[in-house]
Amino acid sequence: MIIATMTKHKHAEGAGKSRRRRTVGKFHPGSSRNKDPRGSKPQNSSDSWIYGSHAAHAALANPDRVCRRILVTRQAAETLAEHQLGSGMPQPEILSREEIEAALPEGAVHQGIAVSVLPLPDLSLDELCDNLADIDAATLAVLDQANDPRNIGAVLRSAAAFGIDALLVQDRHAPEATAAMAKAASGAIELVPMVRVTNIVRAMEALKSSGFWCIGLDGSADQSLVSAAPSGRIALIIGAEGSGLRRLTRETCDMLVKIPISGNMDSLNLSNAAAVAFYEISRHRGGTKA
Amino acid sequence: MIIATMTKHKHAEGAGKSRRRRTVGKFHPGSSRNKDPRGSKPQNSSDSWIYGSHAAHAALANPDRVCRRILVTRQAAETLAEHQLGSGMPQPEILSREEIEAALPEGAVHQGIAVSVLPLPDLSLDELCDNLADIDAATLAVLDQANDPRNIGAVLRSAAAFGIDALLVQDRHAPEATAAMAKAASGAIELVPMVRVTNIVRAMEALKSSGFWCIGLDGSADQSLVSAAPSGRIALIIGAEGSGLRRLTRETCDMLVKIPISGNMDSLNLSNAAAVAFYEISRHRGGTKA
Repeated sequence: MIIATMTKHKHAEGAGKSRRRRTVGKFHPGSSRNKDPRGSKPQNSSDSWIYGSHAAHAALANPDRVCRRILVTRQAAETLAEHQLGSGMPQPEILSREEIEAALPEGAVHQGIAVSVLPLPDLSLDELCDNLADIDAATLAVLDQANDPRNIGAVLRSAAAFGIDALLVQDRHAPEATAAMAKAASGAIELVPMVRVTNIVRAMEALKSSGFWCIGLDGSADQSLVSAAPSGRIALIIGAEGSGLRRLTRETCDMLVKIPISGNMDSLNLSNAAAVAFYEISRHRGGTKA
Repeated sequence: MIIATMTKHKHAEGAGKSRRRRTVGKFHPGSSRNKDPRGSKPQNSSDSWIYGSHAAHAALANPDRVCRRILVTRQAAETLAEHQLGSGMPQPEILSREEIEAALPEGAVHQGIAVSVLPLPDLSLDELCDNLADIDAATLAVLDQANDPRNIGAVLRSAAAFGIDALLVQDRHAPEATAAMAKAASGAIELVPMVRVTNIVRAMEALKSSGFWCIGLDGSADQSLVSAAPSGRIALIIGAEGSGLRRLTRETCDMLVKIPISGNMDSLNLSNAAAVAFYEISRHRGGTKA
């Protein structure tokens, strides 16, 4: 299912706005009320909450996302009423700000809306490569050992903003698509497919076989990303903050490039480095349409 | 004092590495031990903790920073021993990881080192303008309504990486230079002067009088930052995430530019937008030396 989303995302500019939506069941605020909000829980252990305005609305707009419950404040319900909810959607439950808070992890900034969802269907590396087979300027990002869900979420957000086709993460290291990741991604988790692989180096070899140039971001590289000006199918490999790319990962890259920074600083933070690299590749490719 | 640092930062490439250091009092690990670590507190209410390897070492290396106490694990003490501590520095106190943790705010990731410090001396806008008077390509960043200390810290880190001369924040909205900000800045808080102003619009008028072009980042601008290709003295005005620039701030800008992003996403996160803009300005100016 997500494959279709990803392919559409590639082929249709502004796909997120023009996407197919379930067309039945316009929501009327006040039509439902949960009687025991303090006991609010996702319905089973694989459910999780997505909250915050951007993240929740993006989840509701994603036809591949199964939503189990929708908790909204009366105010947020009015905004929700302007959207059409799909036919399979649960009735929104109108609650107080505090009641929604009680259903969520501590400190969650929900902005009046929280949606209990099932994980998106898994996408394998083979499926991804098949789907990108005809795309000459496909661009992937590969995170070597990223652990922090907020970091990964922030990378997803920039990836969606600059037209990156998918994000690869290592299964062992990458956290589940948690609420924190979805919040930081600000809806991008619904737009950029995330592929979990067990071994980054093997995944890079597979990508090379599919015609991708594996380009590693490395602060000690001789050439800058802008002077290297990579074209064609690109997989950008980004290491962990501090330690950078692991040795084998680095050795598997076709080319190493750096983002030139002042000698005062050792590195950029992970999501900022990714954002700058995505921007530079997008700019070099002729940019995204705003 | 910080003025001297800032001026040096501008004129000397790699200033952070070549900076004046207090040259007496090399630290020998194990020379001191705190007997009551659970009671560890900065010495008065204006002290605060800076922790984490990069942030703490940068504070210790900053001649303008007054450090009151240094807490280290035995392992971190060995790294510290490779540096020369200034003559006015307190003896490091060797503690267990847990003992250091107990002295810090909950959840602080200290990496074996925490330093209790006084705030850096204030720098006024007039002083900043005086110090940048002779610099043709001076570049400032102005945050309109930034509140999250981690966001501001992340912006400081990118600012240092891409040679931004100073960061202006609004007094009323910007948080104190807290531990969280210092941690996110990864040492940059010691390198990039932060000027607090009471009114952003009045500060922009003052900057214009000092020959700065006030360039606002705005997603709805007609032209991109790269096509505008601003040169000369630049003050980049960056709005709050979500709401963007306030009306008066926007109207006071000489020019509005955007970072072109996909129609799928509304915006980048604050620190990623700042990083991309700083990168683009730095690239256009001929780049930083790595």
